[in-house]
Amino acid sequence: MVIVFTKDATEQDIIQVIQKLTRLGLDIHRSTADERTMIRILGDKRGIDMRDIETLPGVMGIHKITDPYLMVGREYQKQDTRVTVRGTTIGGKDIVVMAGPCTLESKEQITATAQAVADQGIAILRGGAFKPRTSPYSFQGLGFEGLKLMRETADSLDMAIVSELLDIRDMDRFVELVDIIQVGARNMHNFPLLKALGQAGKPVLLKRGMWATIEEWLLAAEYILYHGNMEVILCERGIRAFESQTRFTLDLASIPIVKRRSHLPIMVDPSHASGNRQLVVPMARAAVAAGADGLLIEVHYDPRKARCDGAQSLYPGQFAQTMEQLEQIARAIGRTIQRKQG
Amino acid sequence: MVIVFTKDATEQDIIQVIQKLTRLGLDIHRSTADERTMIRILGDKRGIDMRDIETLPGVMGIHKITDPYLMVGREYQKQDTRVTVRGTTIGGKDIVVMAGPCTLESKEQITATAQAVADQGIAILRGGAFKPRTSPYSFQGLGFEGLKLMRETADSLDMAIVSELLDIRDMDRFVELVDIIQVGARNMHNFPLLKALGQAGKPVLLKRGMWATIEEWLLAAEYILYHGNMEVILCERGIRAFESQTRFTLDLASIPIVKRRSHLPIMVDPSHASGNRQLVVPMARAAVAAGADGLLIEVHYDPRKARCDGAQSLYPGQFAQTMEQLEQIARAIGRTIQRKQG
Amino acid sequence: MVIVFTKDATEQDIIQVIQKLTRLGLDIHRSTADERTMIRILGDKRGIDMRDIETLPGVMGIHKITDPYLMVGREYQKQDTRVTVRGTTIGGKDIVVMAGPCTLESKEQITATAQAVADQGIAILRGGAFKPRTSPYSFQGLGFEGLKLMRETADSLDMAIVSELLDIRDMDRFVELVDIIQVGARNMHNFPLLKALGQAGKPVLLKRGMWATIEEWLLAAEYILYHGNMEVILCERGIRAFESQTRFTLDLASIPIVKRRSHLPIMVDPSHASGNRQLVVPMARAAVAAGADGLLIEVHYDPRKARCDGAQSLYPGQFAQTMEQLEQIARAIGRTIQRKQG
Amino acid sequence: MVIVFTKDATEQDIIQVIQKLTRLGLDIHRSTADERTMIRILGDKRGIDMRDIETLPGVMGIHKITDPYLMVGREYQKQDTRVTVRGTTIGGKDIVVMAGPCTLESKEQITATAQAVADQGIAILRGGAFKPRTSPYSFQGLGFEGLKLMRETADSLDMAIVSELLDIRDMDRFVELVDIIQVGARNMHNFPLLKALGQAGKPVLLKRGMWATIEEWLLAAEYILYHGNMEVILCERGIRAFESQTRFTLDLASIPIVKRRSHLPIMVDPSHASGNRQLVVPMARAAVAAGADGLLIEVHYDPRKARCDGAQSLYPGQFAQTMEQLEQIARAIGRTIQRKQG
Repeated sequence: MVIVFTKDATEQDIIQVIQKLTRLGLDIHRSTADERTMIRILGDKRGIDMRDIETLPGVMGIHKITDPYLMVGREYQKQDTRVTVRGTTIGGKDIVVMAGPCTLESKEQITATAQAVADQGIAILRGGAFKPRTSPYSFQGLGFEGLKLMRETADSLDMAIVSELLDIRDMDRFVELVDIIQVGARNMHNFPLLKALGQAGKPVLLKRGMWATIEEWLLAAEYILYHGNMEVILCERGIRAFESQTRFTLDLASIPIVKRRSHLPIMVDPSHASGNRQLVVPMARAAVAAGADGLLIEVHYDPRKARCDGAQSLYPGQFAQTMEQLEQIARAIGRTIQRKQG
Repeated sequence: MVIVFTKDATEQDIIQVIQKLTRLGLDIHRSTADERTMIRILGDKRGIDMRDIETLPGVMGIHKITDPYLMVGREYQKQDTRVTVRGTTIGGKDIVVMAGPCTLESKEQITATAQAVADQGIAILRGGAFKPRTSPYSFQGLGFEGLKLMRETADSLDMAIVSELLDIRDMDRFVELVDIIQVGARNMHNFPLLKALGQAGKPVLLKRGMWATIEEWLLAAEYILYHGNMEVILCERGIRAFESQTRFTLDLASIPIVKRRSHLPIMVDPSHASGNRQLVVPMARAAVAAGADGLLIEVHYDPRKARCDGAQSLYPGQFAQTMEQLEQIARAIGRTIQRKQG
Repeated sequence: MVIVFTKDATEQDIIQVIQKLTRLGLDIHRSTADERTMIRILGDKRGIDMRDIETLPGVMGIHKITDPYLMVGREYQKQDTRVTVRGTTIGGKDIVVMAGPCTLESKEQITATAQAVADQGIAILRGGAFKPRTSPYSFQGLGFEGLKLMRETADSLDMAIVSELLDIRDMDRFVELVDIIQVGARNMHNFPLLKALGQAGKPVLLKRGMWATIEEWLLAAEYILYHGNMEVILCERGIRAFESQTRFTLDLASIPIVKRRSHLPIMVDPSHASGNRQLVVPMARAAVAAGADGLLIEVHYDPRKARCDGAQSLYPGQFAQTMEQLEQIARAIGRTIQRKQG
Repeated sequence: MVIVFTKDATEQDIIQVIQKLTRLGLDIHRSTADERTMIRILGDKRGIDMRDIETLPGVMGIHKITDPYLMVGREYQKQDTRVTVRGTTIGGKDIVVMAGPCTLESKEQITATAQAVADQGIAILRGGAFKPRTSPYSFQGLGFEGLKLMRETADSLDMAIVSELLDIRDMDRFVELVDIIQVGARNMHNFPLLKALGQAGKPVLLKRGMWATIEEWLLAAEYILYHGNMEVILCERGIRAFESQTRFTLDLASIPIVKRRSHLPIMVDPSHASGNRQLVVPMARAAVAAGADGLLIEVHYDPRKARCDGAQSLYPGQFAQTMEQLEQIARAIGRTIQRKQG
């Protein structure tokens, strides 16, 4: 077990921890590397509540030697990873909202919705061309045809695109059309896909599997980094619990936990977890308040006409109001919502 | 199935719903009572996604005849329940923070911590005298002796008290000492206790069981109302899911869901769910952003000395900063944090 | 960390473990007491998969010093606890089936159902007089009137009674009428009740809370033992998971886990977990195959007339067939189903 | 809502259901097709507990028109699907045990383990060549080299092979080497893979995702059937719940539920859910008792040397004993364990 200190921990912070450990009857080994101090605990840790030490000033975290990830961890890289796409940076002080329809449906729908979100200063357009549907009888998406329409629309509005890649065999064509490759929750443990994304040369937005612990999620990201791609954005979208009033239970505590353990940016998708637009707005506000670096929100120029998940898509007017509220929440914690100048 | 409209739904809202239902091939029966319109659906509802109707303007909710609760529902009472304790109102525009130690430990601890939270304008002091501990070998609380100390301290600072009642046989003595009776998560389905609380003559703070669906939780509240006590405050404190980095998973979506279905105020306890003070602050902010009417926060004048859950208690200084942040978040959504004038 | 050996572990078994630990670079301290060997591990256990040692021949288990329970553990008492009620022993080689209606409803129902299960050699009659119902509008049980009817019926058939105690204030009257006091899942963490049961002078059947880990369940039992009552029978009845086709998910792996860690008998209630009689029979068979010491099964002389949970009650004929199947399953693993001679 | 009767339902069974529905105030429409009667319910089903009808004699099930699957359902195909591989039939009266190492490691390991299981009459050898590992730092499998070794070994012992396909791009080479293609839990929602398997021309063993409801699992199978492959074997391997003493919680109730709803065979993998060989044996017995059509069990000729999951692999001697016990359990429910003549 290793206590890792923050770079700016004072000598007094470190001495305090050493004294606490000594009083507990533990032997320690102190070392310093790369301006950072680490204390390895040698004695018998039985019955000691490590949370008492983890919360002392100057302590960044306590790492077990058995911690499986390396490159996604704060030890490996102290400063926050920032991913810049067409001039928009995710992972900095600005909170980035990506918005657009759940599913690409038609030229009219794409252009009208893209315009509606662009009017709010949104720089990154979301939209699904390949849809993971639980039933083979559900609409499976427009495929590359939809993606091309989305690309044209985005270009005309100077927007970037994020869209989900379902089939590893589509990688090459996909990479040419999108700016951020989304890995859906159901593919979080698709290891061949994760490895291939390490070589994709484009940022990856990695959703958390609805069954996945935070550690498993970070390990999935580790696959992508390990295989060569440092530009990974995490996205919490809810886990499976017993409550059935929502599709999934948003685990917002994952935000501060990930922030402490990893340098990767973390976003939240309040739309899929909720399944109902009246829950999307309060949960989007909560995500910003909890420290998220961005949001992925479904907007539809006319949700009543949506072929998929209409009930969870915001109306353009609602979205505009939501952006106002999010700005005020962001300001309350010393951040801002990124908006492109028109 | 009955579509219930809000009191201020316009005739146009209602006509829109009727037309939508008609287009779906459904017969309907419209009725108005107590200034509120209801539409009962008569035809074959198979295959219709009711969320499309639930989200139309003017619709308050869709109720199945099989909905088991009555008195806690918005149909039974449209306006929000407000519970006033020693001049402090829970369930109004002001968000109420109740704070204090997890467990009452000593006179010194109670007075020092109470003073620290009173300094922040806190009007309601929390503190456990009877502790539900998973192990018989853990400290079980100071009992009535602790409660009396807390009462004296609160009186000297003109504060109200909220504390957990564990044993139904203690009810009479308990009611004399506390202002709000807390039902812990583990007692949410203690039916004799719920019934007795219907006659207790004091407001009840009802925590959600970590296994309980929102419907089961509202039904537990229904027991208290049905047995005569309308002053119930709900408190979300996390449910059990598979993630092990936190003790429980805070289900913040329960806030907007409860707000729509029930007139009862809803608070959040970010301390017990997190189990770590570094998570308490962001989750408290998120709860306010999601629309909570109050917070229950653990503060200790010196958490390092705490006999129980020290790692999740805030330092007085942290608590003061947190109150600042919460005020700004509250303002962003048009609310305020209640603070007593010194 | 302590490796505890079984009483019949050979010297060779012990040497094998010591050599394995030594090869891993660990120091050890060996001691023997009460014919049992224990090895305390002294070195640095980081990165060692203890399952490799736990599964070696002769090893009973690996116990952390931090294990919170004592009296329910195998270290405290090596031989299985046997609870004998009116000549029927739970926790021995015989598997004990307790059967009867979910809820006591009427004299006719009690006598007809009791006779039906007595015909199958059942020695212990189950039946609820005080029902924990999620809704205050549901039938709450016949109370003491029902319990007296059940007592009379049981006496006339020379049967014992198991029934659920809901209200701690009923303890004295309750104890006079029943032979085994059932603690329902919702009361598993009702600590005043657990403490009082330590002094009740009657065996306790403790159901697992639907939110409770196995460790929390054993700790709840520890409360009863610690407060003076060694006669506790555990009963698995399903935990809450996301699957909604069954009410609860029966965690049958709890049987072998409890068997290794504790000396207490463990039963299974397949009726409540399933909520559907067509699932009760296969799950009852599975419970016996997994090593349960007993079953708690709902039977109704005419389930179509049941006021509560009729769908999960077996018909008398079904029950008779089920008993046949269970006998064959029991024989397959060297046990028998206990049946009273008529 | 449609009540579907079994083929052998008597006229009296049907009349009884009609009378029950009529007494409940419902109108009905009766039709018969393909020797099977169906009753469509026309009236207002509010507040009626359909379980009371579902459990009447002659009723096969109650199907909502909104049931999403078709081809995997019992309505589509009444008789059980039987999948025959090299003369061994899965889905018939015989229970089929597939056994072998978790992961292929070396020629010595494959041949020794294959021989050990062949000695027990096992006809289908399991073994992973491509491993889905949560960490990129874990052993990822021998790949096609391992698969070829396994093929040679199996051929020399006249065994069939089941192995997991991870990467859709490997399909063509994979199909040439294995007899049954395994889809791991993590790939249950890999839709491109499911579609491709519809054209694979080989039977598919589809594991349940640890997050998946039974309905989602059947829908995943529906993808494979819909795309052309009727030979799908389901495999329960545990879902994620909060209990941490086991890796996953085996949901054995899924067996009778799947059996009623679908014609597809269902197996159980007790090894991965347990993570500990001392749990594997009782859970294997329980699975057979609950009605499973087969088991997937990990055996290693020397588990102490295993590179992966050694703790959950059975020793050859344990496996032989387990087969004995399983045979007796199977006999108790009128089935047999399939064993090849040596």
